[in-house]
Amino acid sequence: MRTSQIAPPPRLLMGPGPISADPRVLRAMSASLLGQFDPAMTALMTETQGLYREVFRTRNEATLLIDGTSRAGIEAVLVSLLEPGDKVLVPIFGRFGHLLVEIAERCGAEVHTLETEWGQVFPASAIEDAVRTVRPKLLAVVQGDTSTTMNQPLEELGAIAAKHGALLYTDATASLGGNDLYVDEWRIDAATAGLQKCLAGPSGSSPLTLSDRAVEVIGARRHVEAGIADGTAGRGTRIRSNYFDLAMILDYWGEQRLNHHTEATSMLYAARECASLLVEEGMDAAVARHRLHGAAMAAGIEGLGLTLFGDQTHRMHNVLAVTIPDGIDADAARAAMLDDFGIEIGTSFGPLHGKVWRIGTMGYNARRDAVLLTLAALEQVLRAGGVDVVTGGGVGAAREHYEGAGEGASDGAGQVGAAGQEGAADGAAAAVAGAAR
Amino acid sequence: MRTSQIAPPPRLLMGPGPISADPRVLRAMSASLLGQFDPAMTALMTETQGLYREVFRTRNEATLLIDGTSRAGIEAVLVSLLEPGDKVLVPIFGRFGHLLVEIAERCGAEVHTLETEWGQVFPASAIEDAVRTVRPKLLAVVQGDTSTTMNQPLEELGAIAAKHGALLYTDATASLGGNDLYVDEWRIDAATAGLQKCLAGPSGSSPLTLSDRAVEVIGARRHVEAGIADGTAGRGTRIRSNYFDLAMILDYWGEQRLNHHTEATSMLYAARECASLLVEEGMDAAVARHRLHGAAMAAGIEGLGLTLFGDQTHRMHNVLAVTIPDGIDADAARAAMLDDFGIEIGTSFGPLHGKVWRIGTMGYNARRDAVLLTLAALEQVLRAGGVDVVTGGGVGAAREHYEGAGEGASDGAGQVGAAGQEGAADGAAAAVAGAAR
Repeated sequence: MRTSQIAPPPRLLMGPGPISADPRVLRAMSASLLGQFDPAMTALMTETQGLYREVFRTRNEATLLIDGTSRAGIEAVLVSLLEPGDKVLVPIFGRFGHLLVEIAERCGAEVHTLETEWGQVFPASAIEDAVRTVRPKLLAVVQGDTSTTMNQPLEELGAIAAKHGALLYTDATASLGGNDLYVDEWRIDAATAGLQKCLAGPSGSSPLTLSDRAVEVIGARRHVEAGIADGTAGRGTRIRSNYFDLAMILDYWGEQRLNHHTEATSMLYAARECASLLVEEGMDAAVARHRLHGAAMAAGIEGLGLTLFGDQTHRMHNVLAVTIPDGIDADAARAAMLDDFGIEIGTSFGPLHGKVWRIGTMGYNARRDAVLLTLAALEQVLRAGGVDVVTGGGVGAAREHYEGAGEGASDGAGQVGAAGQEGAADGAAAAVAGAAR
Repeated sequence: MRTSQIAPPPRLLMGPGPISADPRVLRAMSASLLGQFDPAMTALMTETQGLYREVFRTRNEATLLIDGTSRAGIEAVLVSLLEPGDKVLVPIFGRFGHLLVEIAERCGAEVHTLETEWGQVFPASAIEDAVRTVRPKLLAVVQGDTSTTMNQPLEELGAIAAKHGALLYTDATASLGGNDLYVDEWRIDAATAGLQKCLAGPSGSSPLTLSDRAVEVIGARRHVEAGIADGTAGRGTRIRSNYFDLAMILDYWGEQRLNHHTEATSMLYAARECASLLVEEGMDAAVARHRLHGAAMAAGIEGLGLTLFGDQTHRMHNVLAVTIPDGIDADAARAAMLDDFGIEIGTSFGPLHGKVWRIGTMGYNARRDAVLLTLAALEQVLRAGGVDVVTGGGVGAAREHYEGAGEGASDGAGQVGAAGQEGAADGAAAAVAGAAR
């Protein structure tokens, strides 16, 4: 029996993620493997930790990768921080808030929630009120929830958590790299991500950072694995998972290099390359790029005569939801985008199922050509589906947005250009640089 | 800031794993990504499941990948099968038996063990006696434990487990592909693996298969995730992990395609390619190749005047342990192998720490040139370290072994050649084919 080579069809992935990976990341995964404790390997791990400190904007020593998808990072943090009976507060504004609840419940925590309508975020005061009432050990909140495209402001939450003796955890899977996240400045105790959104990589590695306070809480539950025990007595309640035991994983990534899992070397290479790309570009420039192309896509969608969903002042830069126009067969339209144009856009979950499509502009696909191609194809598909679209309205409005941004106009994208591109002489240069990636 | 391209130094990884991946697997990971529910993606998932059925020699519908390293697969099986208070029996003959114990304990199970000296395996009768006494829900046993290089015979354990109403799980991470494993014939209810040993890939994906009985036990604990709930009421005790909840993961890989994690696409590509390589070669031929090159390495080690560790009649084909000769600085010798020759051999854990080195011949490195290079370099390093080695004895003995095998001699390798290479006219052709890979 002879199987054929792997040959996935070419796709422009413009959904809520995964998105098309940067070719540099894909190539990095072809590098030959190293042994786990080879000095070249441990040096690469150390380098990768340093790069992620820049991505997370933190000085946290405890910055590392979990070998699994983004939800592996989430579970590692929750199961390591939460003991059965601990109180956790989760403000829910989309599917991934529900995910935090359900993982925390499985950890045996006492979970309290706060809910808002899909398409909205919480004012900090509402969260503070709930923290004051519940007095949780952990405040766990999603930063960007792709299910609604909303970006929960976190700036004030760290101080609120600290004031009431709680730790703050955020799931930044969908937002990191495309939206501001200042782990240290915002006093976030734990943050996790994935590679498959603004980091321009494949799913399968979850970057994570922990404050000293979080490390202390986890360290109070340190138990060295039986098979390699060093005689140190275990402390505190044993963490319910071995794979996600951050106390052991910290020993593995730390100076002790205590054996735990066998590091997923190719995914480490990918994660390292994702962070390199962002750090080379500069975090401000990367956020500016996502803001520029996200705004251009939004302008294009409105230019076609469609309506954006949710509170646009709190939307993530990298993904939008568009109300599916009346009369069109939504699934057939998505299928036509994929089959005829090779472009994937996203469907939706829960209360938004069948009501909106989700369109991403993130990572490698936060690019001018990707935005314009998507709008051009969408116009054709909508028209064929019987929707009364504005001819040329999508591409036209996006182009106008880029020109406005390029001319240093006083809209968001223009500011972004000027602020984001380090050393750029003016907004125009910044916009060009952003569009060229 | 500009970071350099990733450039790991060239290494011939001849330790207990990870080993150097097959270049075809590394190339597969560079393929462009697909969306999660793209028909091209789901077709690839389905194809991969079929390939792993051949690798595991099973017709189990429930054959899939866990997105994590090999211990992620272990934890997924244990946390999904075991409820708090359930009895599990673990025969321990090395480090990875201890790992099963500790993961099962963290699942809240009541763990019973059976221990034997490192370097030995259990007779089936000893395990049956313990099963009869303990009456466990699950008998969990490592097949090949790299810490001791032993390969526990499993042939009779499925019938024993079934007779006493237990399920049988085996961790085949280190053995699969290089040693016989017949999941259906041996009545194994759950088996897990990793890619980084005989499968010739990188760590980071864990192939797994479940019998209908195991699926039934897991299905009795099915709870659809809150964020995507379909109105189905949950059943039984909720599984303690979301990430490792096999009931949900079965829904994700099954016809329902219920969203769970975002599949680690590049690792799926790798896993698919690993299985393709084995299936193209034929499972019997792959086992024969590991037997041939493992035996050649063992002959070479003895030819140098060194002593093998453990019960050689129950050693895995793909890894051996060699007693570190008196007088040599063991760490300096391993460092010299790596620094001067680019060859990695393994150190050891627990009771064997400092007593043996472990040398693997597996996956892509179960090759004649890899064996002979390793022996040639080892001779130099041992001599420089003051050991009185037989000049040319390692390479010579290995060569002789290959010639003997090629001539269809009645030793193990010769039989392997004849039995293993489908359609080969004689043992010589088989040995040549095996050596040529």
